[in-house]
Amino acid sequence: MPRNLRKEASPAEKIINGDVRAAARLIRRIDDGDREVFPVLTTLYPYSGKSHVIGFTGAPGVGKSTLVDKIVTKFRRNGRTVGVLAVDPTSPFTGGAILGDRVRMQNHSLDEGVFIRSMATRGSFGGLTRSTADAIIVLEAMGKEVVIVETVGVGQDEVDIVHNADTTVVVTVPGMGDDIQAIKAGLMEIGDLFVVNKADREGAARATRELQFMLDMSAHRFRGAGWNPRIIETVAVKDEGVDELYQALVDHRRHLEAGGGENLRKVRKDRVTNQLLDLLKEHLTERALEKLGGLEALNGTIEEIVERAKDPYRVCFDLVERLLGGASG
Amino acid sequence: MPRNLRKEASPAEKIINGDVRAAARLIRRIDDGDREVFPVLTTLYPYSGKSHVIGFTGAPGVGKSTLVDKIVTKFRRNGRTVGVLAVDPTSPFTGGAILGDRVRMQNHSLDEGVFIRSMATRGSFGGLTRSTADAIIVLEAMGKEVVIVETVGVGQDEVDIVHNADTTVVVTVPGMGDDIQAIKAGLMEIGDLFVVNKADREGAARATRELQFMLDMSAHRFRGAGWNPRIIETVAVKDEGVDELYQALVDHRRHLEAGGGENLRKVRKDRVTNQLLDLLKEHLTERALEKLGGLEALNGTIEEIVERAKDPYRVCFDLVERLLGGASG
Repeated sequence: MPRNLRKEASPAEKIINGDVRAAARLIRRIDDGDREVFPVLTTLYPYSGKSHVIGFTGAPGVGKSTLVDKIVTKFRRNGRTVGVLAVDPTSPFTGGAILGDRVRMQNHSLDEGVFIRSMATRGSFGGLTRSTADAIIVLEAMGKEVVIVETVGVGQDEVDIVHNADTTVVVTVPGMGDDIQAIKAGLMEIGDLFVVNKADREGAARATRELQFMLDMSAHRFRGAGWNPRIIETVAVKDEGVDELYQALVDHRRHLEAGGGENLRKVRKDRVTNQLLDLLKEHLTERALEKLGGLEALNGTIEEIVERAKDPYRVCFDLVERLLGGASG
Repeated sequence: MPRNLRKEASPAEKIINGDVRAAARLIRRIDDGDREVFPVLTTLYPYSGKSHVIGFTGAPGVGKSTLVDKIVTKFRRNGRTVGVLAVDPTSPFTGGAILGDRVRMQNHSLDEGVFIRSMATRGSFGGLTRSTADAIIVLEAMGKEVVIVETVGVGQDEVDIVHNADTTVVVTVPGMGDDIQAIKAGLMEIGDLFVVNKADREGAARATRELQFMLDMSAHRFRGAGWNPRIIETVAVKDEGVDELYQALVDHRRHLEAGGGENLRKVRKDRVTNQLLDLLKEHLTERALEKLGGLEALNGTIEEIVERAKDPYRVCFDLVERLLGGASG
């Protein structure tokens, strides 16, 4: 870890040295969509890539936060430093995420080895997946050995977020309604581990059986070869099954690292590819709008589209042609 | 409506003439991300813009489908043709959306004035909001006087989808957990109408009071001025409160059209702006990747980023500079 001898270290230097407040500030700026964060992220990037990034997802109310809390404790008892990123896209207007931080912090507030932040990005251009990827870089560069990303698994965005983790945990509970079963179904393909939480409830065995059935039905696994997704029953509030989940997380990481780390490299390559495409999409659009003179310059065209004198498809093709038509490949 | 005298009408002509199968086929192609749909959409676009577009959103299990079903019946009894688009981003892998169509169709299967389609877009580039916007154009061009878009309101994507409607209905039920309250909070700012469904349950009055309180707390309304969001209690399965909801929908539409339609024009302008930006983002990225020689051409760079020899931020800025640096504005 580089030591800084000047009086005032840069934000990046502070973060690399584990400065909690500098990290919190940068994540906040990422969450706010501040464009000035990119030079800092560029400096941090070489320090990232060593953590075990774990994604937790599941419908609202399945007990993800409690489960993450217990798993954090397990990792801490095993001497690992942990960063937690709670991504809550559903409370952009309420400041709920910040309140969430405080509640969550309580159990680990005296433990310097744990760093917990929430994000509630509304993100005009880049969106949730992009800013979450950036925040993960911050936690990794801080030196957190384990980075946990937790999000409500309902929209495609949320699926993308956790899918970019090294290990993806899908959490469910017994006896959810049909709507929620549908959600679960959408998450089947991305899970490395499945947790049936609140397993002391009626129907736990059935939920596990159904999950197993759905896993058996999934024709293909697009994650690293040779891993059979596991199903673990937990009662997070009673700390039951948490040991098994911890062991499964460690096992999956070992699986990724086995044989020269071919599987880990594949997962990481997917992650980088997605991040690069997200960045490209964001910056291209922003820079293009700049070139075009901003949204205001398009105002007349937009009015014409509203009046049906033009259509957005042809307008868009023409704009792209004007912007990229002459560019060298 | 243009009549076609040739033997084989084009897909666009068929749709403009109300051909259900042609419309279903096009929506399916939109859902699949087929690039060839754009010329068809260009032809359809001038026929769009006349429908009342209504968005329904809410957490899983609040009874959106039943409510939409009842409202469709009301519009039909009042002589309006209706198109319904059920957007379910949570079941991309299961074919659940198609099954959903069949179940939904039953109540209106003999009614030619109702057209119901589901979408479950995963969308590599454009995403859900973009393809939903396209599908709305199809239903409008078919001549449906009312177009209802229904989606599970959890992620930002889903909020964006319904936010693009003329009238946005946020559905909730009494006594949901804290997690779900948080979701509701995220939806407060976008609702023109709020429905407390299953209002025969305990806690309905309290849920309504809480909603009213949250509405009073919202500092600003960024929708058309002069509309006070209404809260309506319904028991959709018993058809209770559906008349009031219907009336509120009609009233909101009248509000938008009042005084020369200034408010409607504002809503429509927002919708067009968002659609254009989404299209631009998608096409720019696609065309840029083409120019760069495809994702394969970036493979070496991606490997270097994985190895931390490069970082994605600088790589992205360099690529954008190369693509747009010399372009004329």
